[in-house]
Amino acid sequence: MKKTIAIVGLGLIGGSLAGALKGFEDFRILGIVRRQETAEYALDHGFVDEVTLDAKAGLAQADVTVLSATPDGIMAFLEEHHSDFQPGSLVTDVCGVKTAVLEKAKLLPQSVDFIGSHPMAGTEFAGIENALPNLFRGSNWIMVPRAESKSEHKALIRRMAHYVGCQDVREITPERHDAIIAYTSQLMHIVALSVCDDADLFLCRGYEGSSFRDVTRVAALDPDMWTDLMSLNAPALTEVIRRLEENLHAYRIALTNRDTERLHAKLAYSSNRKRRINLPGSGQIPLP
Amino acid sequence: MKKTIAIVGLGLIGGSLAGALKGFEDFRILGIVRRQETAEYALDHGFVDEVTLDAKAGLAQADVTVLSATPDGIMAFLEEHHSDFQPGSLVTDVCGVKTAVLEKAKLLPQSVDFIGSHPMAGTEFAGIENALPNLFRGSNWIMVPRAESKSEHKALIRRMAHYVGCQDVREITPERHDAIIAYTSQLMHIVALSVCDDADLFLCRGYEGSSFRDVTRVAALDPDMWTDLMSLNAPALTEVIRRLEENLHAYRIALTNRDTERLHAKLAYSSNRKRRINLPGSGQIPLP
Repeated sequence: MKKTIAIVGLGLIGGSLAGALKGFEDFRILGIVRRQETAEYALDHGFVDEVTLDAKAGLAQADVTVLSATPDGIMAFLEEHHSDFQPGSLVTDVCGVKTAVLEKAKLLPQSVDFIGSHPMAGTEFAGIENALPNLFRGSNWIMVPRAESKSEHKALIRRMAHYVGCQDVREITPERHDAIIAYTSQLMHIVALSVCDDADLFLCRGYEGSSFRDVTRVAALDPDMWTDLMSLNAPALTEVIRRLEENLHAYRIALTNRDTERLHAKLAYSSNRKRRINLPGSGQIPLP
Repeated sequence: MKKTIAIVGLGLIGGSLAGALKGFEDFRILGIVRRQETAEYALDHGFVDEVTLDAKAGLAQADVTVLSATPDGIMAFLEEHHSDFQPGSLVTDVCGVKTAVLEKAKLLPQSVDFIGSHPMAGTEFAGIENALPNLFRGSNWIMVPRAESKSEHKALIRRMAHYVGCQDVREITPERHDAIIAYTSQLMHIVALSVCDDADLFLCRGYEGSSFRDVTRVAALDPDMWTDLMSLNAPALTEVIRRLEENLHAYRIALTNRDTERLHAKLAYSSNRKRRINLPGSGQIPLP
C-alpha cells in the first residue's frame, strides 16, 4: 500500500509542491484544504491524488505532513491539531520564518518528528490558480531540524527537495535561518515596497527598464502573510534595513560631494563583490 | 544605392543594435570601431555589413550615425568629430544621460540633426561577445529631440526602435529624462550595489531566492561607465536616494515599534501601488 504525503493548504506554494511531488517514490499526495472550490480545482488540474476537507481524517492517514500556510496559519493549525498527527510521522512546513514555528512545534507529542522547511521559491502571485509544479527548479531548500530529528526524516526531506527540482539543500538553526532570511528575502521585499512608495512611481511607465521591473517585482505581495513574516522576524529585519540605509547613504554622500574618485572606488568595490558571489538573475537559472 | 547607418562603438549595446538593425529598410550597417579584434568579431558574427577603423571615412558615408559608448566617450567623440558628419545627416546616441550629451551636441553644425536616444535595455555584461540582437525586444526607447529636430528624423528613429523590437517610444526633454532615469534606472543600480555592500553577502549563498538574485543582478556593472552616468546626473540621483532612505526608514520605524497595524497598512498601501502600476518582471515580458 502506498504511503501518504498530506499537504495542508493548497495555495501558491502548497499547490506547486503538491504538483511537483506527484510520483515521488511510493507516496500518494493528499491535499487538506478548507474550501470546496480549492479541493475541486486541485483534483481537476491533477495537483493531488486525493483531497479532503476533513483535516483530522487526513492527518490520520499521513506519513508525512507539509503545513503550507501563512506563519500564523501554521501556528494556529499546530495549536488545534497537535494531537491529530500519526505517531512516528514526519511534519514539516514551508513558511519563511522558523524560530516561532519551531517554538510552536514543541506542542507536538514526542512521537511526532518536526523538521522546519523553507523552499526558497515563489512568485508575486497567490493561490492554486497560479501554482507551478516547476516553481522549485534551481532553487534552494533550507531545512531546520530539531536536535532530536531522525536522520531518516532528514534524508527523506532531502529526497523530496531534490525530486521537486531544488539545486541545494542546507541545514541550519532556526535563529540563523531567520537572521539570513531577513537579509536575502525580507529586505528584498522591503526594498521593492519602498521603491514603489516613491512619489514618481506612476510617472515612470514607459521609462522603466529591466532593472526596475526586477527590483519591484515582489512588491505585489500579500499584506496579511508578510505582516506575519516580518513581525515574527522584526529584530533581524530592522537591523538589515538599518545597514542598507547606511550603505545607500554612503553612496549619496559620495554623489553629494561630487567626489568622483570616491564614487568610482565604491562602484569598483561593490560591483566586484557582486562578481565574486556570482549569483545569476532568476531568468538565468539553468533548468535541469 | 543603399543608405548607411553607422554605429560608432560595437560593445554590448552598439553590437546588439547593429545586429538588430540588419535588414532595416534600405540601410546597410557600418560599424566604426577602434580595435581590429572588435572589427573582425563583428564581421565574422554577422553583426554588421561592413566595418572600419577610420572614423572620419566612416562618418562621411553615414546618413544616420549612432554613437554607442560611455557618456564621456560620446562627448569626446562629438568634440573630436563634430565637423566630420555629413550635412543633412541624423546623429543619435544610446547612452543613459541626456542633458550633458545634448549640451555637447551644440558643437555640431546646423546642417546636422541631433536627437538623443536611450533604448532602455541592457544586461550586466559588456562587450560584443555578449551582444544579443534581441536585447531590445519588449523594452522602451526614449527619444530626446531638440526643438529644431526634423520630424522625418523623429519618424525614422521610431521606425528603427520598432524594428529592433521596442514596445514603446516616448519623447521627452533631456532634463525630464535625466530626472526619471535617476529613479527608474540609476537608483536600481545603487540599490543593487548597496545590497551587495552588506557584511553578510558571502554568507548568503545557498539561502538566496529569486528576489535576491533579481535585486542584485545589475550590481556587476562597469565602474567607469557608471561613474560617468551617475556623476553627470548627481543632483537628481542624490534626491531619489534620499527619498528611498526615507521610505525604508518608515518601514524600519513600524518594525522597531512592533506596530503591526501600521506595518499592515504600509504593506497594503505599497503592494497596492505595485499592483496598480502592474509592470511585469523582466522574465515575463512577452516576446513579439
